[in-house]
Amino acid sequence: MLRTHNCGELRINDTGKEVVLCGWLQKSRDLGGMTFIDLRDRYGLTQLAFNMEADAGLCKQARSLGREYVLQVRGKVAERSNKNPKMPTGDIEIIVLEINILNKAQTPPFTIEEETDGGDELRMKYRYLDIRRDSVRRNLELRHKMALETRKYLHGQDFIEVETPVLIKSTPEGARDFVVPSRVHPGEFYALPQSPQTFKQLLMVGGMDRYFQIVKCFRDEDLRADRQPEFTQIDCEMSFVTRDDVLKTFEGLARHLFREVKGIEGIVFDRMSYHDAMRYYGTDKPDTRFGMQFVEINDLAANKGFRVFDNAELIAGICAKGCASYSRKQLNALTDWVQRPQIGAKGLVYVKCNEDGSFKSSVDKFFDQQQLGTWAEAFGAKPGDLLLILAGETHTTRRALGELRIEMGKRLNLRDPEKFACLWVTDFPLLEWDEETGRYYAMHHPFTSPVKEDVSMLETDPGKVRANAYDMVINGVEIGGGSIRIFDRPLQEKMFSVLGFTPEEARNQFGFLMNAFQYGAPPHGGVAFGFDRWCALFGGSETIRDYIAFPKNNAGRDVMIDSPSPIDSNQLKELHLRITGVKADKAGKQEQER
Amino acid sequence: MLRTHNCGELRINDTGKEVVLCGWLQKSRDLGGMTFIDLRDRYGLTQLAFNMEADAGLCKQARSLGREYVLQVRGKVAERSNKNPKMPTGDIEIIVLEINILNKAQTPPFTIEEETDGGDELRMKYRYLDIRRDSVRRNLELRHKMALETRKYLHGQDFIEVETPVLIKSTPEGARDFVVPSRVHPGEFYALPQSPQTFKQLLMVGGMDRYFQIVKCFRDEDLRADRQPEFTQIDCEMSFVTRDDVLKTFEGLARHLFREVKGIEGIVFDRMSYHDAMRYYGTDKPDTRFGMQFVEINDLAANKGFRVFDNAELIAGICAKGCASYSRKQLNALTDWVQRPQIGAKGLVYVKCNEDGSFKSSVDKFFDQQQLGTWAEAFGAKPGDLLLILAGETHTTRRALGELRIEMGKRLNLRDPEKFACLWVTDFPLLEWDEETGRYYAMHHPFTSPVKEDVSMLETDPGKVRANAYDMVINGVEIGGGSIRIFDRPLQEKMFSVLGFTPEEARNQFGFLMNAFQYGAPPHGGVAFGFDRWCALFGGSETIRDYIAFPKNNAGRDVMIDSPSPIDSNQLKELHLRITGVKADKAGKQEQER
Repeated sequence: MLRTHNCGELRINDTGKEVVLCGWLQKSRDLGGMTFIDLRDRYGLTQLAFNMEADAGLCKQARSLGREYVLQVRGKVAERSNKNPKMPTGDIEIIVLEINILNKAQTPPFTIEEETDGGDELRMKYRYLDIRRDSVRRNLELRHKMALETRKYLHGQDFIEVETPVLIKSTPEGARDFVVPSRVHPGEFYALPQSPQTFKQLLMVGGMDRYFQIVKCFRDEDLRADRQPEFTQIDCEMSFVTRDDVLKTFEGLARHLFREVKGIEGIVFDRMSYHDAMRYYGTDKPDTRFGMQFVEINDLAANKGFRVFDNAELIAGICAKGCASYSRKQLNALTDWVQRPQIGAKGLVYVKCNEDGSFKSSVDKFFDQQQLGTWAEAFGAKPGDLLLILAGETHTTRRALGELRIEMGKRLNLRDPEKFACLWVTDFPLLEWDEETGRYYAMHHPFTSPVKEDVSMLETDPGKVRANAYDMVINGVEIGGGSIRIFDRPLQEKMFSVLGFTPEEARNQFGFLMNAFQYGAPPHGGVAFGFDRWCALFGGSETIRDYIAFPKNNAGRDVMIDSPSPIDSNQLKELHLRITGVKADKAGKQEQER
Repeated sequence: MLRTHNCGELRINDTGKEVVLCGWLQKSRDLGGMTFIDLRDRYGLTQLAFNMEADAGLCKQARSLGREYVLQVRGKVAERSNKNPKMPTGDIEIIVLEINILNKAQTPPFTIEEETDGGDELRMKYRYLDIRRDSVRRNLELRHKMALETRKYLHGQDFIEVETPVLIKSTPEGARDFVVPSRVHPGEFYALPQSPQTFKQLLMVGGMDRYFQIVKCFRDEDLRADRQPEFTQIDCEMSFVTRDDVLKTFEGLARHLFREVKGIEGIVFDRMSYHDAMRYYGTDKPDTRFGMQFVEINDLAANKGFRVFDNAELIAGICAKGCASYSRKQLNALTDWVQRPQIGAKGLVYVKCNEDGSFKSSVDKFFDQQQLGTWAEAFGAKPGDLLLILAGETHTTRRALGELRIEMGKRLNLRDPEKFACLWVTDFPLLEWDEETGRYYAMHHPFTSPVKEDVSMLETDPGKVRANAYDMVINGVEIGGGSIRIFDRPLQEKMFSVLGFTPEEARNQFGFLMNAFQYGAPPHGGVAFGFDRWCALFGGSETIRDYIAFPKNNAGRDVMIDSPSPIDSNQLKELHLRITGVKADKAGKQEQER
């Protein structure tokens, strides 16, 4: 090694040792007689000291070194006169005897500090410099630890990690596949997996019993904020299990990670049906760190002459504790907020529960004090509380009220980042009807088993069939989801038929899986977790990009290596491909990007 | 769980317990009064017993069940009268009280036994059934354990696993990239990485200090036997290291894996220069489980009137212990063997060292007993030994003699599969001259650093420059390789120029890396191991496909899912691509494959 120690490990009892350190020049301070340099590596910072009187030449050399120079220094560990209790190495410094410049550095395009002056685009272009920043490095270390502990737990539970192929087959069902032209088989393509779903099911047919994989998956979607064309899943499958076996096993994983990575003990998981989640929180991924559940007041408020309520399918609201003091201005702002197109409510009804027991409401004209009192009672409101009520079509009202609930939770500081509320949402509908295409789509995927009691409804009332599916939700973030799978061919065929596949289409695309089911498929089920998302949750960020070493931007572009990019015409020729309908000139290309 | 125990865990002291097992019907034996079924899962086999007298109905039901049916049985653990000491569960059986058929099975297309009647193609098509076979399952378990122990060791050495992107940028240098058309950026392509080389170097520039990743890599090669278009590497990189630091660290990894996976202690690594490997073994990956090193006898054998030797650049041979008794027929067969086009020797000269001290040789006409005696002495041959000598151009002669050495090692049982000879081959040439294209190619890759003392020769005599590179070789198999990297821009630019890149080409393809070098790149080096190959070596197989859950065949095709395959014309349209010059008809496609 070019060093005897790293920059994070020397302590007061190393005093007197001659050491060699390597690292980057973080900061240099010239105090006339003395010059100090902070030397940085992955492990920490160590102060280097140069004394003008002791060695003027060396001290001058030290002063000539720029930020981010790569140095090797030999010196003696000494106790500092001016200790820094905030640094683990703050009790010592190195009296340098020799400097060796391993590499020079141009001035970096942004400061390598926690509070950097670099914008997002610039830091992504120079991601290798961005990674030098403490927070980015810590995020990658967290990710490493998450993966390590995930593997440790699952191995302990008899899971075997099996690598499934990356070059697979394109299937028109579901979201968009990336395809890979084959040079050896002209005109034919591989596809990159959106998940290893069918392969993990085949492993169960193959008797592997318990499988997992931390694996890259790919989706060629029109990119939304915080989606990546490649992302990582913790993918798992088990045989001979019921739903509750799966839930218990992966509650165990979550508890293990909370304990080992976050140092948090005693995590418990609630369970909630999809129906209740929608009814009480207006979303299938409720943030249950706080209550503020929906209260429906159709029976108290409809048909009293207020047209908006009388015409509404649903009248529901939330109770914001202690917010009766909201000013007119604040209430107007909140009304504007729910009327934004992203939320889409038509208006907002409020009821202030005054400290004196009276009520003040935006619908005083239509409802008297006694009536408003029955509402307050239904909400369990106390003097000082504020009721916020929306009305309209059930689904959209719930969705809007769910957004309002989250917003109020934010304003009331109920979304404590140090608190974790964990939840399984269960009993999802198996199918979703799509008006546009006039057909059902699988809410999870076509391999999800219906709840046993509902199977017969597949023929008569497919929309009512519940799936044996579950999502893990933490603090309102969907961390993962899965299901018990269909494992017999006739049911799988029926499922494809309900989804509008002809038998030929089903056979062409999933014949190998349905064949496999004929040779002794065991009952099985599993789950897949969004690993990037889970890292972000544990790291306290909402942005998965912060937990990916080399992320792509929102346009799916790697701005550091400039990819995707045009390829050589010879390469295209060898692939038997021609590009059509694209302006080849750079200007055209750039235009498309904006 | 649908079971209380698995099929591998019940023992004599579980006798009397009521248990529920799930698994596959491996074998059924009807002995009239009794019927026995072997129930199989990943963990083992358990015998189920049915007594006609005790429950005729149940016994008849048991007899009706076919191979590979998936069963759930409830029963009592009982001591067997006829114990089977070869099975861990061989002391007990289950007196079955109830059978529940979880899934039926068609008769599998081949027997799920170690000695299967299924050919390779058939087993690959039904790989999910092949995986049920003990040996395949054990191979995948070995792979899981290898990965787990690799991570454990490297984590203990402060390495951090970082995921690098799979969607990167195509670079014309090196072997062939798979490309991935972007739908969002029409006419542009990502490429799949042949290795994360540049990204791991950027992580070093980013100060990650020690990186590893077990990662899929991709190469669109014309496939040779036992190559896969996607394969897995253990990819590693370290900062502030010399060559010897890297070698020691990864000797440590190998020792850890030998100990934890193979139960073998005390593995030591030899080191050998490329020059010596070629000179004494005729290959850069010598199998050093046995000696039989080359002896060069130009000074003893040239210019004595035997034209073949007189015209040869090299006269060299090996000494096969105890083979003087080879018959004329055996020697002729050996001569035929070396003359096969794959080996390509012109002929084979032998010298038998007879027990009486005399010599019998195929070149008796040209060399007398005294002369042959000096040869025998040079080889250290004893009475009873056989010298096998080839002559010709140095490189081809060495290569052929290397093959002959391996063949003789095989015939003499010197390649003990239970013995492991580990080796670092070092000091490779940096560059290889290619006659056809009239340019140098990097022997490892263009980021490999020259040995310091040789840098100046890059200008004057590039072919002589040694690389600071190393390969790990175990039993003649190249398990991995790496190098100390170039880490300053001017040297990297010179390297690209020697490789025939114009400055523009170098900048276009690797500008981001050379830029990175300007912002404080640390000295660094690393290594990458062929994970599939290492698993095969430890598993005792020469075929990496046996260690891949869903491998592709030698034509790069997954015969189970039938991939690659044509894609939808709409999908092509969306990608702005058109296929050119390919017969679309199936017949044409099939033809290309053969």
